[in-house]
Amino acid sequence: MALRYALAGNETYWYSLHIGQLLHTALDGRSRNEIVGSDGRRHSYAEFGRRVHKLAHVLKSLGVDSGDVVAVMDWDSHRYQECYFAIPMLGAILQTVNVRLSPEQIVYTLEDTQAKTLLFHADFAPLVEQLAQRIPGLQRFVLLHDGVAAETRRIVAGEYESLLAAADDEFPFEDIDENALATTFHTTGTTGQPKAVAFTHRQLVLHALSFAAALGTQPAGLGLSRSDVYMPMTPMFHVHAWGVPYVATMLGLKQVYPGKYEPARLLALRRAERVTFSHCVPTILQMLLDAFRPEDEAAADWRLIVGGSIVPRALLRAARAKGIRVFTGYGMSETCPVLTLARSLLPEGESRDTELCSAGHAIPLVQLRVVDEAMQPVPADGAAQGELVVRAPWLTASYANDANATRTLWRGGWLHTQDVATVSSDGRLTIRDRLKDVIKTGGEWISSCEMEDLAMRHPDVAMASFIGVADARWGERPVAFIVAKKATVVDLAMLHEYLQVYVDNGEISRYALPDEVILIDELPRTSVGKIDKKRLREIIAQRKSAAGS
Amino acid sequence: MALRYALAGNETYWYSLHIGQLLHTALDGRSRNEIVGSDGRRHSYAEFGRRVHKLAHVLKSLGVDSGDVVAVMDWDSHRYQECYFAIPMLGAILQTVNVRLSPEQIVYTLEDTQAKTLLFHADFAPLVEQLAQRIPGLQRFVLLHDGVAAETRRIVAGEYESLLAAADDEFPFEDIDENALATTFHTTGTTGQPKAVAFTHRQLVLHALSFAAALGTQPAGLGLSRSDVYMPMTPMFHVHAWGVPYVATMLGLKQVYPGKYEPARLLALRRAERVTFSHCVPTILQMLLDAFRPEDEAAADWRLIVGGSIVPRALLRAARAKGIRVFTGYGMSETCPVLTLARSLLPEGESRDTELCSAGHAIPLVQLRVVDEAMQPVPADGAAQGELVVRAPWLTASYANDANATRTLWRGGWLHTQDVATVSSDGRLTIRDRLKDVIKTGGEWISSCEMEDLAMRHPDVAMASFIGVADARWGERPVAFIVAKKATVVDLAMLHEYLQVYVDNGEISRYALPDEVILIDELPRTSVGKIDKKRLREIIAQRKSAAGS
Repeated sequence: MALRYALAGNETYWYSLHIGQLLHTALDGRSRNEIVGSDGRRHSYAEFGRRVHKLAHVLKSLGVDSGDVVAVMDWDSHRYQECYFAIPMLGAILQTVNVRLSPEQIVYTLEDTQAKTLLFHADFAPLVEQLAQRIPGLQRFVLLHDGVAAETRRIVAGEYESLLAAADDEFPFEDIDENALATTFHTTGTTGQPKAVAFTHRQLVLHALSFAAALGTQPAGLGLSRSDVYMPMTPMFHVHAWGVPYVATMLGLKQVYPGKYEPARLLALRRAERVTFSHCVPTILQMLLDAFRPEDEAAADWRLIVGGSIVPRALLRAARAKGIRVFTGYGMSETCPVLTLARSLLPEGESRDTELCSAGHAIPLVQLRVVDEAMQPVPADGAAQGELVVRAPWLTASYANDANATRTLWRGGWLHTQDVATVSSDGRLTIRDRLKDVIKTGGEWISSCEMEDLAMRHPDVAMASFIGVADARWGERPVAFIVAKKATVVDLAMLHEYLQVYVDNGEISRYALPDEVILIDELPRTSVGKIDKKRLREIIAQRKSAAGS
Repeated sequence: MALRYALAGNETYWYSLHIGQLLHTALDGRSRNEIVGSDGRRHSYAEFGRRVHKLAHVLKSLGVDSGDVVAVMDWDSHRYQECYFAIPMLGAILQTVNVRLSPEQIVYTLEDTQAKTLLFHADFAPLVEQLAQRIPGLQRFVLLHDGVAAETRRIVAGEYESLLAAADDEFPFEDIDENALATTFHTTGTTGQPKAVAFTHRQLVLHALSFAAALGTQPAGLGLSRSDVYMPMTPMFHVHAWGVPYVATMLGLKQVYPGKYEPARLLALRRAERVTFSHCVPTILQMLLDAFRPEDEAAADWRLIVGGSIVPRALLRAARAKGIRVFTGYGMSETCPVLTLARSLLPEGESRDTELCSAGHAIPLVQLRVVDEAMQPVPADGAAQGELVVRAPWLTASYANDANATRTLWRGGWLHTQDVATVSSDGRLTIRDRLKDVIKTGGEWISSCEMEDLAMRHPDVAMASFIGVADARWGERPVAFIVAKKATVVDLAMLHEYLQVYVDNGEISRYALPDEVILIDELPRTSVGKIDKKRLREIIAQRKSAAGS
């Protein structure tokens, strides 16, 4: 080649994509917005910057080294946001502990990463006392609280705010290799032990940039701008709260950290701080809508990305009726998480709702394929189902400590989502089901999610969950778990009669009609609020074994 | 570290940030928008995708290898957009030749990169005939035209459309090392030979992402969304038309390529295709405004990033009066180019205009510093001047073939812009002058740009340019070149009287008043339309030597 060109010279700066680089725009740009803490205190961005430096000093003086795992157990707080930056910027790895796991599972996850340092909220003090005894490697504890007196003085090195107050506010951060690990957490799969995924600095930076580009360029009313006020409503322990705190901090937005989720508090914060942008799972949205009061309906525009589960259209409509604009985002723990965002240019109506409830379109750099079992793309006709496999620059490269699971995840050079999807002729992705939840009956794939969506349109059905039960003749047959609305009853005949309409108009196969309806008071949920189908299968198994015994 | 984590395993996909990855969102997402070609033809994104594959086949069959330089001389065309992708995706390097350079300089730039292949528009056929004789290394020629019969059949391997028509539409593109060079072009500095800068795949991808994130999240009316229709009005040979074709293609926007710039044609395309988003230098904007007709004022919203020179407020206001929203972008050839974008949340008025005419705020990942000669930051008070130095992941790492200039560019680990700037207390950057154009008189730095802005407010001044002339006592003294409006005269006394107001109110120093006014019919311009101060200095030198002889 004729160009004598050096990527790096004596003084040429090699720009590493590390998390500290996300701060230039907001800090050099001197964002005048505030960060409202879970303790009600308000910090300027300049103060936030100083607190990140102080936290780094605190951790360093506690003995945290480059490559060490620093675990955090907290609600959605400004402290957590500070940890999102200071811990990786120090070269350490932030472990976001799922506080809804069982104590046994939490012990497992902390031993799995060999975390030596734990920052924990006072609410978890009794649990942490146990952990301290059971995990000898866990040596350093920092207490976090929102103004409530602390109990666990015995083991802690100090309390977060006091430690920060005493620390210097200029830490000599160095550039970090962009391929160094920045964060880790455990997937909440419904089988086996939780598995650790991990993300590098580069991955988090690229995710933040692409997500910001996608959100920013969304059609009017479905996007994000610098004028927005952000409040997370997805736990910060769960896939970096979908990465939005990184986006919001990079852009210097006003941010509101709500602490532990309580619908009335979330709604009050939204009104008081004029929150315009949030994200949550469908369950939280339903809780918010149930808690809505007239003054909430009068409040300004609120845009919500809803994800983590397939979004029922009824929920989208209920939200819209109360002035909330809902659109879907899709991703998973292994994918950092965001892969797609829903959008629509259609006027209000059924078709727009379908678009906004679908997974939507890939965000920049994401490559999607819906493939058959031979990894060949299925037709993009909105009907052909296959597994969604993906590539993006922010997918977990490994399950830490589990080479076998990694091989399965990355079979054939694509990350396997284990989600069944279709792609429409205009490239819109719709998730139909989890691969393992699809009901395979007589050679057909029945989407349990679609059946649930249809069943929940029945006026007496509050919640529905369909699972496939092994059947000697058909492979599997659908069974419906139904939560009936107060003072109503739903039985198999009623449900069949209701669903027959959709069989007649060709929307579903007649083989999709369930063999049985099981009434249940409440559907079991996983630690992140999804319906726990593993538990439903156990209920079936128990009934069978009870019937057999 | 306790996490056994592999970044790349047997089948784990390592995602390289190469230009081909920008196409996933638009092509998999099956954008339904069209790309309107400079020949008036309309292509779907699917066709665009096929044409990129076809072009790769054509180039490969002509013998283009990985690492080869492929030069292009064209107006702003859909073919150029195809070259932006196909050439780097093939592993070759796209050289965007500045067609406004002199033939001698074009020979220099093509010899400098040892380009072996040249795609050229029929308009340049006579010049290319000369080049073919003078540059033995230049062996392969492809003719581009917009429907006009071609002349240069003697040397060309074929005509673009015919070659594409015959080529296969599936090319086996492979992943490219993200640090491989993708593009190169020559800076149009006013001293010495043009110098080649070059950009890697990674740099262009990161620039596109960050620029999209910044544009997308701008305040209402100053940003970009998926609903926009894009037309470039900055030459595609000049710093990738500011990188916007990469952004627009990534997002799947409707795009309009106007060919050679003619104000009437640009305005007609804007009306016919409902263009909403463009970018240009102040000179082009002025030409458009001069050509405006009533139907142009009635047309819809048009947002324009104006950059490449300091934007006079009078121009912003004139544009606004005709329904065009103008905001500034700042960057340079060495910076890919975008570093900052102007924004404002203020209501219409003087202060908003000041914000929109300033360079504004850094886009994500860009780190700015305004420093004194010891590389220490100057106060962020909107008044203290210093040189702007920057870091970002998309800055040229070298001047190709010029190690000395590279050392100067990257002195101290920061890219030196050679622009004099101030930073306000809210982090807003304002470019005051080129370091070499600042007039240093009696220990003070006088911004030539500020003087020009003030002088141009005089009712009889059409254009003004201030330069510093060597002075034994003061170091330098200002001299004003003035283009007077038709049928008016401007002299030194009139200008002094007018500017004295600004001296009295403290806006400028009394030492800023020029020693002399030189009336001139037209200001000389560089090949990219900037005022050529080097030429003005020559005029002064010639006058002196004439006076002396």
